[in-house]
Amino acid sequence: MHHKYAAHIHYLRQKVEKELEEISFPERPGNLYNPLVYSLSAGGKRIRPLLVLLACELFARKNNLSLYPAIGIELFHNFTLIHDDIMDEADIRRNRKTVYKKWGRNSAILSGDVMLVRAYDYLCRCKKEVLPEVLKTFSDAAVRVCEGQQLDMEFEKKEEVSLREYLGMVSRKTGALVAASLKIGGLTGGATAGAAERLWETGNNLGIAFQLQDDYLDTFSTGMKFGKKIGGDIMSNKKTFLSVTAMELASGKEKQRMKNLYSGYYSSRAGRNKKIETITGIFREMEIDKRATEYINRYYNKCLSLLYKIPARSRSSETLRHFIDDLRKRKS
Amino acid sequence: MHHKYAAHIHYLRQKVEKELEEISFPERPGNLYNPLVYSLSAGGKRIRPLLVLLACELFARKNNLSLYPAIGIELFHNFTLIHDDIMDEADIRRNRKTVYKKWGRNSAILSGDVMLVRAYDYLCRCKKEVLPEVLKTFSDAAVRVCEGQQLDMEFEKKEEVSLREYLGMVSRKTGALVAASLKIGGLTGGATAGAAERLWETGNNLGIAFQLQDDYLDTFSTGMKFGKKIGGDIMSNKKTFLSVTAMELASGKEKQRMKNLYSGYYSSRAGRNKKIETITGIFREMEIDKRATEYINRYYNKCLSLLYKIPARSRSSETLRHFIDDLRKRKS
Repeated sequence: MHHKYAAHIHYLRQKVEKELEEISFPERPGNLYNPLVYSLSAGGKRIRPLLVLLACELFARKNNLSLYPAIGIELFHNFTLIHDDIMDEADIRRNRKTVYKKWGRNSAILSGDVMLVRAYDYLCRCKKEVLPEVLKTFSDAAVRVCEGQQLDMEFEKKEEVSLREYLGMVSRKTGALVAASLKIGGLTGGATAGAAERLWETGNNLGIAFQLQDDYLDTFSTGMKFGKKIGGDIMSNKKTFLSVTAMELASGKEKQRMKNLYSGYYSSRAGRNKKIETITGIFREMEIDKRATEYINRYYNKCLSLLYKIPARSRSSETLRHFIDDLRKRKS
Repeated sequence: MHHKYAAHIHYLRQKVEKELEEISFPERPGNLYNPLVYSLSAGGKRIRPLLVLLACELFARKNNLSLYPAIGIELFHNFTLIHDDIMDEADIRRNRKTVYKKWGRNSAILSGDVMLVRAYDYLCRCKKEVLPEVLKTFSDAAVRVCEGQQLDMEFEKKEEVSLREYLGMVSRKTGALVAASLKIGGLTGGATAGAAERLWETGNNLGIAFQLQDDYLDTFSTGMKFGKKIGGDIMSNKKTFLSVTAMELASGKEKQRMKNLYSGYYSSRAGRNKKIETITGIFREMEIDKRATEYINRYYNKCLSLLYKIPARSRSSETLRHFIDDLRKRKS
């Protein structure tokens, strides 16, 4: 079974990559279209389009019906990366210059806009009967993702954010698109309305689990993350599950200490490393790492138990569960 | 007839305004949704949604079928304004602060994104049978509008732009959405594929005529334009039909003189007014104003002759022609 599973995922991933490569963009204006080709060729795990295909297979023997919507979801994901990088003034993504850094802000705004339009183009390429529901699901998710990004930016300016608020933001910024991926995949495969709703819930929990794991790994990963440094979130004072929970649980004195550490300015590399070390130490002392693991497990378990309840082709259910397990086991 | 025409347009405009007011946005995050309400309440001529409704009436007795797509088109138009104002660093639009100026760049990017998603939402609310073609028409136009904006920005940095290039840009930036408005309106009303195509052409010519007229009025309008100053385009060194044509027709000496005037820096109000006066004088000397009027008439005539050939309800054809005539006669 395991060999077949790996081969199948490999096959699906190749299918996605091939389709992405075949998207045709006009040559001109170059400053509009080159960023799109660049952005899509940067790689990435392609988790969302794979989830679309796998969810389709839960109900249909063929996944062809969901290939274009899967591409649409990946295009949308890349649109969010292009625009987020402008807002966050991020220079590097996946070890390369961001579109914002390479082409400038205006081209990044505009090529992001085109990417969003092309995302809809691909989403539309599904069976007429499911098109309205697919589009509705997609637009709902798209709006939620924007809400999540807005909240995320607002949190940066706030000294304290509750865990509840933080999870609400993550459910929008990351959860909504993963939820839509599973639901849209299901719809294209012929899922009933009820099953489609449960797929949405499944994906929402999966997305939250995935993001909390990202938060965890950014500080506690033992392996180096490709293109990222351990402690990057601490360094840039990002609100994460770890920082938010620590602030909620800390005593008055500890709280003040963390606030001082977060708000301090560290001009030297040694100073910055010290900040990361000290805050990581506090997290460990307070057992925030354990708590994070608990939460991550809780969301993954919720996701899997929801998935169990969806009547689907058993082989394909197993494959999807396997895929989710692989995400859960990742170390970077 | 004239009285009935005016009453009908008034009725359609109220219908559009009412529907725009009734769009519901969540209260939070405020920095995401307040810009949308603000942008939509700024007024504007609502030309595009009116064209959608009028084009629907060419084929159907009721225009209800096209109201939501009409709103979608207006939302898209407002999306382009929000993002363009960031790229152009524009502080004022319709006599008020731009979203970019009032809420900052990041909120303007993100609320523009949400506006685009909501535009698709409304576009989708049409009969299932025409939905794929409506969406295709819309996405094609959306991409062209982005191409047009990219070209427009690139032209700003170029010393010389040919009239051909300029018209290509205008056909994208302004023509495409007007074209899509008429075509989508027609599709919702039950136009044949052939009629829909001709409506697109009609609208494309109308959009170009409208923009060239804008160029003309910015320099030669006798009345003050609401929220704009005469000569604004000259002041900001914009490529327009006037500047592009003048450069194409000028002798070597005149060309150099214009380049000097355009590239000069004028710190005083008097200096700036002198620049506008001098360049306007050159335009008149070269009879660029007459040439502009010729071109505007050519595009309006082309638009009307295309419209004549479309088999449609005669009363409604007359109304649409009347509406186009009103646009043609505007003085500001």
